[in-house]
Amino acid sequence: MAPDSTPTTVTPGTAPAPEPAPADAGASARAADPVFALHVGGKMEITSRVALDGPDELSMAYTPGVARVCQAIAEDAALADDYTWVPNTVAIVTDGTAVLGLGDIGPRAAMPVMEGKAVLFKQFGGVDGVPICLDTVDVDEIVETVVRMAPSFGGINLEDISAPRCFEIEDRLKQRLSIPVFHDDQHGTAVVVLAALENALRLTGRLAETTRVVVSGAGAAGVAVTKILLAAGLSDIAVTDRKGVLHGDREDLNDSKRALAQLTADRTGRTGALADVMDGADVFIGLSGGTVPEEVVATMAADAIVFGLANPTPEVHPDVAHRHARVVATGRSDFPNQINNVLAFPGIFRGAFDARATAITEGMKLAAADALAALVADEAREDLVIPSPFDPRVGPAVAAAVAAAARADGVARR
Amino acid sequence: MAPDSTPTTVTPGTAPAPEPAPADAGASARAADPVFALHVGGKMEITSRVALDGPDELSMAYTPGVARVCQAIAEDAALADDYTWVPNTVAIVTDGTAVLGLGDIGPRAAMPVMEGKAVLFKQFGGVDGVPICLDTVDVDEIVETVVRMAPSFGGINLEDISAPRCFEIEDRLKQRLSIPVFHDDQHGTAVVVLAALENALRLTGRLAETTRVVVSGAGAAGVAVTKILLAAGLSDIAVTDRKGVLHGDREDLNDSKRALAQLTADRTGRTGALADVMDGADVFIGLSGGTVPEEVVATMAADAIVFGLANPTPEVHPDVAHRHARVVATGRSDFPNQINNVLAFPGIFRGAFDARATAITEGMKLAAADALAALVADEAREDLVIPSPFDPRVGPAVAAAVAAAARADGVARR
Repeated sequence: MAPDSTPTTVTPGTAPAPEPAPADAGASARAADPVFALHVGGKMEITSRVALDGPDELSMAYTPGVARVCQAIAEDAALADDYTWVPNTVAIVTDGTAVLGLGDIGPRAAMPVMEGKAVLFKQFGGVDGVPICLDTVDVDEIVETVVRMAPSFGGINLEDISAPRCFEIEDRLKQRLSIPVFHDDQHGTAVVVLAALENALRLTGRLAETTRVVVSGAGAAGVAVTKILLAAGLSDIAVTDRKGVLHGDREDLNDSKRALAQLTADRTGRTGALADVMDGADVFIGLSGGTVPEEVVATMAADAIVFGLANPTPEVHPDVAHRHARVVATGRSDFPNQINNVLAFPGIFRGAFDARATAITEGMKLAAADALAALVADEAREDLVIPSPFDPRVGPAVAAAVAAAARADGVARR
Repeated sequence: MAPDSTPTTVTPGTAPAPEPAPADAGASARAADPVFALHVGGKMEITSRVALDGPDELSMAYTPGVARVCQAIAEDAALADDYTWVPNTVAIVTDGTAVLGLGDIGPRAAMPVMEGKAVLFKQFGGVDGVPICLDTVDVDEIVETVVRMAPSFGGINLEDISAPRCFEIEDRLKQRLSIPVFHDDQHGTAVVVLAALENALRLTGRLAETTRVVVSGAGAAGVAVTKILLAAGLSDIAVTDRKGVLHGDREDLNDSKRALAQLTADRTGRTGALADVMDGADVFIGLSGGTVPEEVVATMAADAIVFGLANPTPEVHPDVAHRHARVVATGRSDFPNQINNVLAFPGIFRGAFDARATAITEGMKLAAADALAALVADEAREDLVIPSPFDPRVGPAVAAAVAAAARADGVARR
């Protein structure tokens, strides 16, 4: 489905998956698997915030009393922010075309991920997330569908939609809607990577403007990571796909890769294969699912920084990376420095909702990254450049920074 | 918006609304109003059914563990019934064109009603309801939008969509989807009316086949009530709109009214004004919001049955009705015999979901009505022909009857 067949390393995760049960084992294997046991009946539910103990409560929460609330909103639409769940609710929208490392498994099979996302939204951000799995992969249809349902939601979180369609869908929804629209596989990943990199650069005594970066993977995450690094002041970035560095002379680039080449290799002049640009590079960020040979890693600069974010198999295994690099991060929970989107998206939407933001700006994303990095900056070590997802300071810190940035950027309604 | 400008008496409610606060009083009036206080922040939220206390739980509910569940559903779509919230979740879909008695107030202002519906779905049926308020009134667009989001839901409850569009939308969705689709303003009302009428007929010693009925109002509720009465064996029904009885010689009927005329007056030959068919009628069912003069009510048969279901002002006030009728029902909680949709929709979806029904059949609706009526049949009195919404037997009894009917009708998947 995705023209870029390299996995986009969506939502870097935690521990490696235990071996899947053999397919022919079927029901008995599922019955013995604690993961399936956890999923029985789904992972989420609707609950009421009001008690309906008798006719009086019923007549307030429902007819006839509710008519007064409806009438008030009909007269002043802004009152929906006060008297409905909408301003705290995000639609988690997917078409199931790029689900984890599984690829195009369709909307029904994508639901467990979307429910998981909703659970994380609530636990770490106090945000009500509603999974919307769409039975279409057509860009126009997805855009129209989301626009039509938008009055029901305070924000749109796009999830696991394959590149390059995800770029156009997000761009068009941002133009059409005056609520936050956020493709987490792009921007959530980008925020967390930038946060970890900020601390890694500080720890290794590097300046953003003179740091040489290689980004492996030009899918959704690769595009967004590259753009946020540029926005954060890193200018020497080479982005590679399976055929090597993206640059303007290549004839095989789609629009999103061509645009990325213009922002990177076409400015620095660095081209060639992955091994060519790794030689002397300060930072490697793996978002591809491929593998980088140890001899290539060995050619990086002293005190190198290696983020191998593919799940469950990092592009460079940490044991290998540590032989040649000073700071190593992965997407896994069983190694230090876990790059996990859950560090970003709950707090970003919490902050956007707290400020009643009409969009999520570049400034809000940068602020989220800075806030994340700042939480461990004073205690930063090689094995601690990013907080744990279970650090209770994360959600509130990100939310506060994002809300402040929304106000600074003029997109806050309060 | 609705070509039939008579209100459709959607969702008969409870007590009459306290006087609305004057519009110019604004915020201070809302602050002093307990109904608004109840609505602050909305009436519902998402909660998690799993505890994520640390990395181990995170890696089961989310990446990487969740990938196994996704993979299993990709290989066998039926497993979504076991491992997602979908089979217990209903989309409560509206376009905001026929909200309570308020009419076309749009999707945003409709949200408080949809949230109320979700709260009732959970409390009385254990069903997870998700409000989807659509920013379109185009039939094609509504149908396409709901079809595209359908993988996210186990059923579709259409709500407060104006007639006659609601008929086409429901029909087309039923054809396109293999999950229950149910327009509550039609069928919920019809089920509860039939249940009350069954007991009222028994109490007054009438047989269905010889009972003369007048239905006032040919909107969504009027159409559905008439059809369910016909299905239940009542054959002598006159349906009126503001111009009198619907019959085949009238030139001003839209398609749904013409179809209704063919099922009623064109068989019985009864035509004329409301007052003409009320003379000698056994049953009056008001679904119009109009008012019937006492002298017209006085012409009904002895031991008449009068259901004035408009809210907050019944077509015949109970004090007036009681002077001429033996059984009187309204939509209000402050009079006996409250006809309230909440008696039906939670149990109907509960039963449909319990049976994994692929549709809601006529048999399932009739079974719901019979089960409702049976709950008070033994103790039926003039002031008790229908259970209270807070009778705890209601939801389970309706659900059991509906699930059994689904199996009998061959639409159950378990």
